[in-house]
Amino acid sequence: MAGKINLIIYGCGVMGRRIVQALSSKDRFEIVGAVDVDEELAGKDLGNFLDPPKKLGVKIEHDADKLFSEVKADAVVLTTTSYLENIHPQIFQCIEAGLNVISTSEELSFPWKRSPDRAKKIDDLAKEKGVTVVGTGINPGFLMDTLPLVLTGPCLKVDSVRVVRMMNSAQRRIPFQKKVGTGLTRDEFEEKIEKKIITGHVGLLESVYMIADGLGWELEEVRELPPEPAIADRELTTGMGTVKVGDVMGLVSVAFGKKNGEKVINLEFNAHAGVKDEYDEIYIQGEPDIHEKILGGVHGDIGTVAVTINTIVNAVQASPGLKITKDLPPAVVVTQ
Amino acid sequence: MAGKINLIIYGCGVMGRRIVQALSSKDRFEIVGAVDVDEELAGKDLGNFLDPPKKLGVKIEHDADKLFSEVKADAVVLTTTSYLENIHPQIFQCIEAGLNVISTSEELSFPWKRSPDRAKKIDDLAKEKGVTVVGTGINPGFLMDTLPLVLTGPCLKVDSVRVVRMMNSAQRRIPFQKKVGTGLTRDEFEEKIEKKIITGHVGLLESVYMIADGLGWELEEVRELPPEPAIADRELTTGMGTVKVGDVMGLVSVAFGKKNGEKVINLEFNAHAGVKDEYDEIYIQGEPDIHEKILGGVHGDIGTVAVTINTIVNAVQASPGLKITKDLPPAVVVTQ
Repeated sequence: MAGKINLIIYGCGVMGRRIVQALSSKDRFEIVGAVDVDEELAGKDLGNFLDPPKKLGVKIEHDADKLFSEVKADAVVLTTTSYLENIHPQIFQCIEAGLNVISTSEELSFPWKRSPDRAKKIDDLAKEKGVTVVGTGINPGFLMDTLPLVLTGPCLKVDSVRVVRMMNSAQRRIPFQKKVGTGLTRDEFEEKIEKKIITGHVGLLESVYMIADGLGWELEEVRELPPEPAIADRELTTGMGTVKVGDVMGLVSVAFGKKNGEKVINLEFNAHAGVKDEYDEIYIQGEPDIHEKILGGVHGDIGTVAVTINTIVNAVQASPGLKITKDLPPAVVVTQ
Repeated sequence: MAGKINLIIYGCGVMGRRIVQALSSKDRFEIVGAVDVDEELAGKDLGNFLDPPKKLGVKIEHDADKLFSEVKADAVVLTTTSYLENIHPQIFQCIEAGLNVISTSEELSFPWKRSPDRAKKIDDLAKEKGVTVVGTGINPGFLMDTLPLVLTGPCLKVDSVRVVRMMNSAQRRIPFQKKVGTGLTRDEFEEKIEKKIITGHVGLLESVYMIADGLGWELEEVRELPPEPAIADRELTTGMGTVKVGDVMGLVSVAFGKKNGEKVINLEFNAHAGVKDEYDEIYIQGEPDIHEKILGGVHGDIGTVAVTINTIVNAVQASPGLKITKDLPPAVVVTQ
């Protein structure tokens, strides 16, 4: 086994805590610091949030710059927010401190099309400071972009890529069930779509762009459709209570990319309580066709924690700059 | 698109010709030379072996050193033989000439365990000369090693990996049908196993070792079992003629790796005319379990040609040394 990797946890919310939980059983990593913007967490031991709690000897700091100046680390695991607009100052902060960054920010997974200026600034500064920055997770980062690209490896040509995720939201945590509109009436759902309270799945566009970039395709149109409600045709019991016939079980999000008038990239994300058969499916039309399926699907929360952790080794070893998961060696499970 | 990659084709047999056929439609690559040990091919235009034939303006040479001294290229596509014992002088020849090597040699895919001295020599010289050497193909190289490792990305832990390929050999070329014993009696099959005329699938052991290396596992036992005949329970029509009930339809090859007394890596390669439902399946036991399936399977010949071609870009861009496919960025289809 190569040497230990010293980590700072930036963001001690749900995802950060799950990552800490998973890291705590792995010898390869050492958590040497933690920071959160929430002042109420300041001074608490990070181990308070383990299950069961145990003393880790790592106090949560409020001031990232102060922490970075005091503690020597190899990389930061950054889980504060999905959106580049909000997270980019924190990314710069880490880079300036000479720290590699592995983040669950969906928009960081492929920022070159939607935020080219920010992407370039991150890439330039990372190269200047000799560190790697990468955004990853189960999706974007793996199931709907990197994995489909991996599966084009045995193809001589590819005409189109379609990915379908079928997820039973009733088996996920309550905030997720709420996020997909479980139990709402159709009108309430439409209103939340209009007010952008329900936004669908962050990162679908990034996955479309990442696939197109991997295939060297110039797309003439890339679009994410407003999420559609999945309507119950039978009464369902969920963590959000009973969903009546005609009410919302969850949602379906679709994004696509067009080339020569054809939808050559199609991504469909189904997350509702009516899904009986969970799976993640990839159809590649080409020479040869590839039809791949993960039966039972991949649990999103565990998957994001795992992909993030398993990307750390590659990120630390990669050449400097803003990296896209498809351009790094595969994130293989770190078993120890 | 980045710049053209100039290639020398080393080995103009079945696989070499298929690779040339596929390369001929891609702008990214330029074939600038070809070499074969067969004197009868010397002086012929490589384009004679295209379907339909066309003049490529590339004469097949007999003397590799002479060709290397006369022609400037970025990489060699080496398809002469499966076995490291036979191919290693050619690999050294390419490295000495400062050429990157992408080879379909199964034993080159992971030579560190079965031929550690040769692996080290190749790695050392490649680093000295600043070139990359990589062995790949559909299997080993993709379906039974790199892809299973990619699929551990969403796992927090992995207890075991099982891969099953189900291939209908009756749909493959005649030499392959012959190689798996199609139409033999059981006695004839056993005799050919004993005389090592039928050897099963070259590279299964390399796949076991590659998976173990990717997972950081030390195996206490690694073994490939002698291929078992698949016996016809009904009369079958194949390219080798009619297979009678009780005769051999093809074979099943199995290799495994043990850790703590358990078979933690299991690879099973089924190639016989009785396979109705073709697929390539991966079972990962861990947290979470991953159960993946490529429905219809991946055609082995097309797959090897494609994986080899799609690995060229990575090999040319990689840092010097002997590389294992799992440690390179994914081989994504080169579409142009």
